[in-house]
Amino acid sequence: MKIGILTSGGDCPGLNAVIRGAVLKGSRKYGIEFVGIRDGWRGLVDADFFPLQRADVKGLSKVGGTILGTSRTNPYEGDRGGAENIKKTMYGHKLDGIIAIGGEGTLAAANRLWNDGVPVLGVPKTIDNDLQATDYSFGFDTAVNIATEAMDRLRTTGDSHQRCMVAEVMGRHVGWIALHSGMAAGAHIICIPEVPLSIEEICEQVESASERGRAPLVVVAEGFKLKGQEEAYSDKGLDAFNRPRLGGIGEVLAPLIEERTGIETRSTVLGHIQRGGSPSAFDRVLATRLGLHAADAIVDGAWGQMVAMKGTEIERVTFEEALGELHEVPLSRYEEASALFG
Amino acid sequence: MKIGILTSGGDCPGLNAVIRGAVLKGSRKYGIEFVGIRDGWRGLVDADFFPLQRADVKGLSKVGGTILGTSRTNPYEGDRGGAENIKKTMYGHKLDGIIAIGGEGTLAAANRLWNDGVPVLGVPKTIDNDLQATDYSFGFDTAVNIATEAMDRLRTTGDSHQRCMVAEVMGRHVGWIALHSGMAAGAHIICIPEVPLSIEEICEQVESASERGRAPLVVVAEGFKLKGQEEAYSDKGLDAFNRPRLGGIGEVLAPLIEERTGIETRSTVLGHIQRGGSPSAFDRVLATRLGLHAADAIVDGAWGQMVAMKGTEIERVTFEEALGELHEVPLSRYEEASALFG
Amino acid sequence: MKIGILTSGGDCPGLNAVIRGAVLKGSRKYGIEFVGIRDGWRGLVDADFFPLQRADVKGLSKVGGTILGTSRTNPYEGDRGGAENIKKTMYGHKLDGIIAIGGEGTLAAANRLWNDGVPVLGVPKTIDNDLQATDYSFGFDTAVNIATEAMDRLRTTGDSHQRCMVAEVMGRHVGWIALHSGMAAGAHIICIPEVPLSIEEICEQVESASERGRAPLVVVAEGFKLKGQEEAYSDKGLDAFNRPRLGGIGEVLAPLIEERTGIETRSTVLGHIQRGGSPSAFDRVLATRLGLHAADAIVDGAWGQMVAMKGTEIERVTFEEALGELHEVPLSRYEEASALFG
Amino acid sequence: MKIGILTSGGDCPGLNAVIRGAVLKGSRKYGIEFVGIRDGWRGLVDADFFPLQRADVKGLSKVGGTILGTSRTNPYEGDRGGAENIKKTMYGHKLDGIIAIGGEGTLAAANRLWNDGVPVLGVPKTIDNDLQATDYSFGFDTAVNIATEAMDRLRTTGDSHQRCMVAEVMGRHVGWIALHSGMAAGAHIICIPEVPLSIEEICEQVESASERGRAPLVVVAEGFKLKGQEEAYSDKGLDAFNRPRLGGIGEVLAPLIEERTGIETRSTVLGHIQRGGSPSAFDRVLATRLGLHAADAIVDGAWGQMVAMKGTEIERVTFEEALGELHEVPLSRYEEASALFG
Repeated sequence: MKIGILTSGGDCPGLNAVIRGAVLKGSRKYGIEFVGIRDGWRGLVDADFFPLQRADVKGLSKVGGTILGTSRTNPYEGDRGGAENIKKTMYGHKLDGIIAIGGEGTLAAANRLWNDGVPVLGVPKTIDNDLQATDYSFGFDTAVNIATEAMDRLRTTGDSHQRCMVAEVMGRHVGWIALHSGMAAGAHIICIPEVPLSIEEICEQVESASERGRAPLVVVAEGFKLKGQEEAYSDKGLDAFNRPRLGGIGEVLAPLIEERTGIETRSTVLGHIQRGGSPSAFDRVLATRLGLHAADAIVDGAWGQMVAMKGTEIERVTFEEALGELHEVPLSRYEEASALFG
Repeated sequence: MKIGILTSGGDCPGLNAVIRGAVLKGSRKYGIEFVGIRDGWRGLVDADFFPLQRADVKGLSKVGGTILGTSRTNPYEGDRGGAENIKKTMYGHKLDGIIAIGGEGTLAAANRLWNDGVPVLGVPKTIDNDLQATDYSFGFDTAVNIATEAMDRLRTTGDSHQRCMVAEVMGRHVGWIALHSGMAAGAHIICIPEVPLSIEEICEQVESASERGRAPLVVVAEGFKLKGQEEAYSDKGLDAFNRPRLGGIGEVLAPLIEERTGIETRSTVLGHIQRGGSPSAFDRVLATRLGLHAADAIVDGAWGQMVAMKGTEIERVTFEEALGELHEVPLSRYEEASALFG
Repeated sequence: MKIGILTSGGDCPGLNAVIRGAVLKGSRKYGIEFVGIRDGWRGLVDADFFPLQRADVKGLSKVGGTILGTSRTNPYEGDRGGAENIKKTMYGHKLDGIIAIGGEGTLAAANRLWNDGVPVLGVPKTIDNDLQATDYSFGFDTAVNIATEAMDRLRTTGDSHQRCMVAEVMGRHVGWIALHSGMAAGAHIICIPEVPLSIEEICEQVESASERGRAPLVVVAEGFKLKGQEEAYSDKGLDAFNRPRLGGIGEVLAPLIEERTGIETRSTVLGHIQRGGSPSAFDRVLATRLGLHAADAIVDGAWGQMVAMKGTEIERVTFEEALGELHEVPLSRYEEASALFG
Repeated sequence: MKIGILTSGGDCPGLNAVIRGAVLKGSRKYGIEFVGIRDGWRGLVDADFFPLQRADVKGLSKVGGTILGTSRTNPYEGDRGGAENIKKTMYGHKLDGIIAIGGEGTLAAANRLWNDGVPVLGVPKTIDNDLQATDYSFGFDTAVNIATEAMDRLRTTGDSHQRCMVAEVMGRHVGWIALHSGMAAGAHIICIPEVPLSIEEICEQVESASERGRAPLVVVAEGFKLKGQEEAYSDKGLDAFNRPRLGGIGEVLAPLIEERTGIETRSTVLGHIQRGGSPSAFDRVLATRLGLHAADAIVDGAWGQMVAMKGTEIERVTFEEALGELHEVPLSRYEEASALFG
C-alpha cells in the first residue's frame, strides 16, 4: 500500500507531529509506504512527491511548521487539476490514497475529490478551532498559550503606565482564541466575531477596570466588528479617522477607546507569532494521536472520513458531518466568561 | 449567603484561578460573601478564616500555588475535628457552606462531611489526572508541558553524548503525565504503573533506538515497578546494588540499563518543578470555568456534588460518582502510544 | 536618612528588582528609610509618596513593570515643578535624596536637578541599550530574548509557506535589539538606524536566502530608514503606496520586498510585548546589583552620579559622563554580524 | 586552507552556534574548507571526519547540543593518540589546523598539542563559567535562566505548603550558577563551593525567612561542602544518616534543615536539564561571535590562542593565560549577594 500525505492551508503547530504519527505507525505496523506531497494540493496536481520514511520523521513531534510545505492551491484549478487528472497521477505513481491535513477549505476539496472517486482521508487542522466535528484541533492550544503569555507581558507594561492595552489575536470568523486567551489572561473585555459590541459597551468595561485601579486589557479577535458599524469597518473600509484602513481592528479600537475614556491606549497585533514555533504538549499529543489513527483509518479503508477528537477519544466522522456549520463560540460560553468582566 | 473556600492536599497550578472564578462570579452576580480558609481542613477545624473579596483575587489567574495555603490535615482528626465541631464552627461564623478544592483524599473527606450534614461542594484537583469523574483536571496540562520541555532539553544533551536519558516524572498510581509527556517528547519507551515491564523489555527499546542512531529517552512515572520485582523495589526496598534505596525508580533503572546495554545512562528526577509556577493557558481556562460553575452550583444548592469537565462542558457529579476507581491509563491508550516505540 | 525612589519613562523589565535591591540593602545594612514616589517625576512634584519597606519589595525580582508607576513628566514643568519647589517638598517630607531610575531624559532631568542642588542618584534604564556609560542596561536582555523567541516562531511559519518574514523590533535611535535578536535568530539581513540600506541591498539578501532554499528573515529596528529616502519615510510621511503612513517601517518594507522579489512577504510588529513581563535571569541579576550598589552610593553621598555596569563590575559615573552621545551600534559590530548574511 | 572543528567535554547550549559562526564566515569570507571531527579528540585520533559545509550549519544558532558529538577522550591516550600520530593524520587529510571548543581539560590538551607542534585554536566552553580568561562563557546564561525558572516554580509550591525548598544546581568547583540563579530567584541563602557554611548558618537564614512568612529557598551548588565536614561529605562519603551517599548535597541538606528547624523541607536536583535545549539569546550571540572571531583568528594564524569575551568585545588570549586559576566567585560578589539574605 502506498499513501501520499499533504498539508494544505495556513501552517499550524502540530502538522509535523501528525505526519510523524502516521508514518511511524503506518510503515511499521501496517507496512504502508508513504510519499510526501510538496506544498499541499499543488504537489498532488504537479506530482511533486518524495519518499517519506521513518528516518525522515524523527524528532518531528516538537518541530513547528510542516516539512511538506503548504499552499492554498485548489486541486480543481489549472490545466492539470481536477479529479480525473489526479486519479491518473495517482495511478501512475501507484498511490492508493491521500491523507490530507487541512482546514475547512482543504476538507471541502477533499470531499469533492472523494465524491469524484479519489480515496482521501482527512485530518482536521485549524488554529482557530472553527470545525464543528472535533472538540479541539491541534495548533489552537499553542496559539492560546502564545497569546496568553504575550498578554501577561502586556499587563505589566499597562500597569506601570496605567494604560489600556488592546491585544488583537487571530480569529477571522470565530472567537475561540480570544475567548480562551482572554479568560486565561484576565481580560476586562473580550471582543469576538460572534458577539458584536458597541464602542460604548467596550468603554464601559475599560472605565470600570480603570476605576478599580486596574490597567484595562481588551482582547479582540481580528474578525470582531463594532455593533451597527459592520460595513464601515469592513476590510476595505475606512478607519476611525476616515483614512483608508491599513491596520486591523485593534488599531481601530485603540484610538476610539482613548478618545472616549481619556485613558492612554496602546494596541498590539500578535500576528504570525501565534501560528509558528514548537507546539505545546497538548497539541503534540493530539496531533500525534490523529496521525496514529489516520494510519488505522487507512488500513480500514475509511476514505471520505476525517479523524477527530471527541472528549478524550479519537473518532471518525464523514466529510459531510465535518463540513457543516462553522464551530462558533456559543453564547453560553461568552456569557460564562463575561462574569469575569466589569 | 456566606461561603468558605479551602484548598487541600498537594498544590497544583490553577488553584488560585478556581478561587478567583468563584469569588468574582459569586460575589458580583449572586451577592455571596466569601471567606478564605487557611491551610485546607486545618483552617476549617481551627476557624482560621479571613475575608476574601474581589480585590483579593485580582490578577490570580496566572499565579501558581494557592493564596489560601494548603495542608494534608484530615477534618475528622484532633479534638476539634469531626462533623459536629465543624458544624458548630460554621454556625458560629455564619458559614452556609464550603467549597473544597482537592484530590481524592479531600473529596472523600468532603463526602463524609456531607453525609454528616455539612454542606460541601467539591472542585477536583489532581495534577496526576487520576479522577474518573473529570476528563481532565487543572494542573495536569501544566505538569505535562513542564515535563515535555525538560525532556526536550534532555534530548539534546543525550544526542551530543550518545547517552540514554531517563526522566522520572510524577505519577505514583497512574501514568498520565508519563504517557502524555513521553508522547509529546518522542520517548522511546514509557514506563507507567499500570503496565509493568521487565528490564529486558525496556533495554530492547533502548537498544533499538540506539541502533537507529538516536539517543534513547526513557520516561518513567515514579510509581512504575519492574515486572516481577514489585516487592524488591518497594519504597523500603533495596536498590540495584542491594543498598537501602534513597532515590526513585529513575535512579533504579539508569544503572540497570547501563549495565545491560553498555550505553552510558543518566537519570533526572523532575520533581517539584512539575507542580509549581504559572499555569498553562489550558489550565487557567479550565480552573477559571470550574470556579465560575462552583458559584452557580452553590446558588443551586448542589451540595454533595463536584463540578467536573466532560468533553468541553462543565457538569456536576455526585461525590459518590466521583470517588469510584482511580482514573488509570487504559491499556488501549498505552498500546496506542507504543506504536511510537521501537 | 530618608530616601525617595522613582521610576520614570517607558517601563522596562527589572525596575522592580532595582527597587528591591536598594530597599533590602539600604534599610537593613544602613538603616535608610525609603519612600516610594508615584509615577516618576510627577509624584515628586506632587509629593505623592508612600512608605516602602522590606515587606513591600518581597518577591519583586521576578515581577515585570514597576510597583511605583511611571510617567514621562518633566520635573521642571508646571506650577509646582522646578528645583526650588522640589527642594521645599523634600525638606517638608524630610527626604535626604532621590534615587531616579530612568533613561536619557530622566538622567538629563536628574542632572539639571543635581546642578540646582537636589541630591539625586541615577540608575540607568534603557531597554534599547542606548546609554554609553553602561555596558548593558537591564531590560535589554529580556527584550532580545522575547524578540528572538518570536522570530524562532516566525521562521517555522516562513519555512512552511516559503515566505519572507519581516520582524520589526524596538529601537528608535539605535539598533542593539535588532542586532542581537537578528544574530540570535539567524536573520538574513538586519536593518538598523545606524546603517541605512537601500531596498535593493535588502532584496539582494532576501533573494540570496530564498535561492538557498531558506525562508528569508528580515529584522528591522523601528528607527531604520531606507537609504536616500529618509524624508519620504519620516514619521509623518507616506507609505509605499503614497498613503498616509500608519504602520511602522516593517509595514513599509514588506510590500516593497514582495513587489521586487516576487516572494510573498509578511510583516510582524513585535511591539509592547518586548518590554513587559518577567525579566530574564541576566536582567534580574544586573538590576538587583544596580539596586544594591545604589544603596552603597547613597551612603557614600555619591549624588550626581549614576551606577553602571562595566565588564562584570558595577561602577559609578557622573551624570556628565553618562549623558554624552547615544550608545550606537558601531560599524565594526554591524560588519561582524554581516558575515552571517548573504 | 582546511580546518577541522571538534567539541569536547560536557555539552553546552551554544556549541552549534560557534560551529555555524566559524563555518559561515570562514568558508565564505576566507574560502576555508571545514571538516567536522566526531566526538571530540576521539574523532581526531581516529580520523573520524566529515565535510562541514554551509548547508550543514543552517538553522543551528538555536539548536542545543552539538552536531559534532562530544566525548571526554584525551588525545594523548591510546595507541593512535599523541601529537605525532595526530600530526600524521592531519597531514594525511591535509588539515591545516584544528578549532577545539571545550573547557579546561580540552584547552589543557589543546595547549599540550600546540606545544608539540599541532596548530590548535581554542574556543572556551564552560557552562559553570569557571574560566578566568573570559568574562562569560556561552551556556552559562542558559543554565542560569533554566535554574531561575525552575526556582520560580519551586517557590510557589513552597509558599503553598510553607515548606523550605532546596534547589541543587550545577557547579562542582565554582558557584556562579548558584550565585546568579539564587540572586535572580530571590534565594534566602546561597551555598557555593567557595564559601563553606555551617548547617547552623544555613538554618539561621531558613528560620529568618520563615519568621517573615516566606517559604525559605536554599540554593546550593553541587560542589558546596558544609563547614568543617569537607571529608564526611566527600564524593565517597556517608550521608547525614551514615549511609553510603547516593544523592547530591541537596539531599544531604534537606533532612538536616528539616531536623533542626522543624520546617518541612524538600530537595530538587535540577540536573541535566540545565545543560540541554535551545540556548538563550545571550548565549547564541556570544557563541556566534566567538565562532566568527575564530575564523578570523585562523586566517591570522593565531594558533595556541583562544578567543574570549572581555566586556563587550571578543579578544584573543594565549592558552597559557587561559589556563591559570579557576574563575571562582570572589568573596566580594558573595558578600554583595548576601545583603539580600536574612
